[in-house]
Amino acid sequence: MHSVDLTPVSGAMRWQFPVALDPHSRDPLFQQIAHGIAADIRRGRLKPGARLPSSRELAATLQVHRNTVVSAYGELIAEGWIETAEARGTFVSRALPEIKPRRFAPGLAAAVGRPRKAPFGLNADPGFVGYQRPLVPFLLPDGLPDTRLVPRAALARAYRRALYAQGDLALSYGDARGVARLRAALAEMLAATRGLAISADDVLVTRGSQMALELIARTVLSPGDVVAVENPGYRTAWQVFQAHGAKPMPVPVDAHGLDVDALTRLTETTRVRAVYLTPHHQYPTTVTLSAGRRLALLELARQRDIAIIEDDYAHEFHYDGRPVLPLASADREGFVIYIGTLAKILAPGLRIGYMVGPADLLKRAAVERFCLDIQGDHVLEHAIAELFEDGEVMRHARRARRIYEGRRDFMVERLRKRLGGALSLTTPPGGIALWATIAPEVNAAAWAARALELGVFVVAGAHFSFHRSPLPNWRLGFAAYDERGLGEAVEILAQALRDVRRGGGRTRASV
Amino acid sequence: MHSVDLTPVSGAMRWQFPVALDPHSRDPLFQQIAHGIAADIRRGRLKPGARLPSSRELAATLQVHRNTVVSAYGELIAEGWIETAEARGTFVSRALPEIKPRRFAPGLAAAVGRPRKAPFGLNADPGFVGYQRPLVPFLLPDGLPDTRLVPRAALARAYRRALYAQGDLALSYGDARGVARLRAALAEMLAATRGLAISADDVLVTRGSQMALELIARTVLSPGDVVAVENPGYRTAWQVFQAHGAKPMPVPVDAHGLDVDALTRLTETTRVRAVYLTPHHQYPTTVTLSAGRRLALLELARQRDIAIIEDDYAHEFHYDGRPVLPLASADREGFVIYIGTLAKILAPGLRIGYMVGPADLLKRAAVERFCLDIQGDHVLEHAIAELFEDGEVMRHARRARRIYEGRRDFMVERLRKRLGGALSLTTPPGGIALWATIAPEVNAAAWAARALELGVFVVAGAHFSFHRSPLPNWRLGFAAYDERGLGEAVEILAQALRDVRRGGGRTRASV
Repeated sequence: MHSVDLTPVSGAMRWQFPVALDPHSRDPLFQQIAHGIAADIRRGRLKPGARLPSSRELAATLQVHRNTVVSAYGELIAEGWIETAEARGTFVSRALPEIKPRRFAPGLAAAVGRPRKAPFGLNADPGFVGYQRPLVPFLLPDGLPDTRLVPRAALARAYRRALYAQGDLALSYGDARGVARLRAALAEMLAATRGLAISADDVLVTRGSQMALELIARTVLSPGDVVAVENPGYRTAWQVFQAHGAKPMPVPVDAHGLDVDALTRLTETTRVRAVYLTPHHQYPTTVTLSAGRRLALLELARQRDIAIIEDDYAHEFHYDGRPVLPLASADREGFVIYIGTLAKILAPGLRIGYMVGPADLLKRAAVERFCLDIQGDHVLEHAIAELFEDGEVMRHARRARRIYEGRRDFMVERLRKRLGGALSLTTPPGGIALWATIAPEVNAAAWAARALELGVFVVAGAHFSFHRSPLPNWRLGFAAYDERGLGEAVEILAQALRDVRRGGGRTRASV
Repeated sequence: MHSVDLTPVSGAMRWQFPVALDPHSRDPLFQQIAHGIAADIRRGRLKPGARLPSSRELAATLQVHRNTVVSAYGELIAEGWIETAEARGTFVSRALPEIKPRRFAPGLAAAVGRPRKAPFGLNADPGFVGYQRPLVPFLLPDGLPDTRLVPRAALARAYRRALYAQGDLALSYGDARGVARLRAALAEMLAATRGLAISADDVLVTRGSQMALELIARTVLSPGDVVAVENPGYRTAWQVFQAHGAKPMPVPVDAHGLDVDALTRLTETTRVRAVYLTPHHQYPTTVTLSAGRRLALLELARQRDIAIIEDDYAHEFHYDGRPVLPLASADREGFVIYIGTLAKILAPGLRIGYMVGPADLLKRAAVERFCLDIQGDHVLEHAIAELFEDGEVMRHARRARRIYEGRRDFMVERLRKRLGGALSLTTPPGGIALWATIAPEVNAAAWAARALELGVFVVAGAHFSFHRSPLPNWRLGFAAYDERGLGEAVEILAQALRDVRRGGGRTRASV
């Protein structure tokens, strides 16, 4: 960077233009000049009332055309940074508030400091800022899809068309339930694949299934309400219920899914307002709720007046036999609220989910949704609707299903072959993760810690356990990597196991 | 559409392939065939166990290549609709659940029917589904920008680059606070234009300012807390506070903005937890909070330990003199939470807003944000970050400001000229709407009703009044139409006024 000396502009102060101009920058020169001067005003190097060089002088010093400096000064005048005084020159605006750079207090001032309630019990990590994964080559957490498979070209085209064809509509305010076109596409897809004979008005588009849970909590649950949940299960859902004052209560899960007998016993002593479950591929154990339990659960809901919140987060990825139709498809009386997401079928980052439920519930949910964020991103919603209309979403889902099925089989086989003595597993019928059981003689925590050092992140069972009990399980996603990557990850797990067994690595082994 | 007769497939039933194949469709023929058969299974025309024609037969009848039918059957088998029995043929799956089309109960079943609380007082319209405007040529509601000005080509390119350059990152899970790149761009913009010396970590990206209000309510307000609000003011903010159990209390607004003396008196009798205000261009009256009141408000906040929620929703559009720096720029102790939006500067449909506040508050807000919808749309966030980095956002804002200033002047002049006897107004220093006062002898409601019949939608003052008192005011947006459009809208208002004065139209006039 070179600096440019300028003639004195304010008494004895010798102002130097602060940055080098970059002729190759995407910012035009006049803007670079304006930014440089404004920055110096902000940082106090140019004080209110200071005289600036004439445009001719500055142009000569900076070796630019005079019009370039005139444009820069014009910008600065328009923004109120500088002013011209008839025939006397150009000055830093005298009326400019004295600006002292500030920082928000690093701690927290009294007024906004008092937490509204006790820190959020289930997720009290003060540094928590969402799904930020460790920087290691292999993340095998709770089930990421392979976003490299996303039909990027089609999606980019769909964004462009949404901007041009739907522009004014998509860019302005609209329907809090989501654009009608996407609701229609989702209804058609759900009718074709889930046995739900619904129309666009039966669907509310959300920001992923998480916002569907939020809206359900706001419309269905009152403070103190008991929500029966699967244990092990999906912690982030429990957090939402808890955030709205409801009380999640754990019900065990076995090889046939939620233990409906245990739930029935719970209802005999406790008024259960709702049950939240993942019947298709139970999260995290991957088991499918058996047909008998499905019928029993629906009957229990009828008898006891319980709302069923059915989270079918990975319906499309079912490999063995046909996908099981959701509880919602057998519910004639409106006990079931059905939620789904495109996070796995397309990409988590796009944040498109949906909820299907009785008309009155959806109406109230639309009001809550308006309070939350007014509406969805209608450019995105039009783009995704187009991908549905073109068959692109379902083509992608079929392709991904074939690929993920291969990866599942590879991963199961490789884990058994290389780690069969240390963990066991059942081939999951669907979903994008395995549920492995660690052998009792292996220190699972030490193994996971050493694996993380070597480059593989696994999620330990305690994360899914209601009381954070140390379950001897890992949930291992298999969809996000190809066979070569999965093979490498398994080799790292094997190396970590050897290290732990030898007492190697930085972590102590128990065996 | 032509139909195709098929040989009997199941006893005496003579099945007819249900739809015509369309060789020009974007769906390949095999998919059209698979969809047609699946549709007939769903609607019960093909029962479990029914035999399907052989692929050769069906191909001959449909006049397609046999491989096309083989592919279709393959799809259907993969999806569990049909099954093959060794050497005996292809059948509709016997294990398929009997599917009866269903609808969610049009009314609401008991379980999900009970509203969680009394219907939402401030917005109890049961048909409410967000910002759906009447279908008339001119909507002059509370301040829409002109989305036709949005740099569409640049935005479409930025979407594409975000997908390709940031693809795996943008499409997966990430930071609940928003992508670092956008937070950095916003921090730089806020430092350059608002006198806030902040960095990326001081910014949380939200879905528009509405979600910022939601997060503030969740982190700062407890049930029963009093929030002082401007009257008239922004109803949708009051709804959010109320939804979280807080109690909005109105404080009058006059020509110098929020009446800080009145607020001070309120604090003498009531513990006020927070004050929500729009000091730059008060919503809806457009006035700017005077310098003296700014100082007094900050001092009051310090003395009484009050959080200031500063909503600077249209900072960029300030026409007369320089934009006033926000309260947040003068707050050294962390009393102010500053929120803004790109809804006006870019487009409401893109749903990008932000909040700036003390570090601990932002940490808690990030946890709440994760519960709400996990994270933002990171493809969009990368795309918008690029538009900032390219200077595109600020260029667009400057261009829009020039255009809107012209429209403001045109609208003020035209309204005075054509309707000066019926309404009066002060030229607003900024923002994208006017606040007109209707003359006492004019029936404002009848005038608005007649205007709507003729094609102009205006928002009546009662909407902005805390107690829905019938204020003699209209808020008239001027940014969304060019001068020709604004001129036409004014002519329609003039015609409506004549009709009302003559007792014409379908609405009765009072004068």
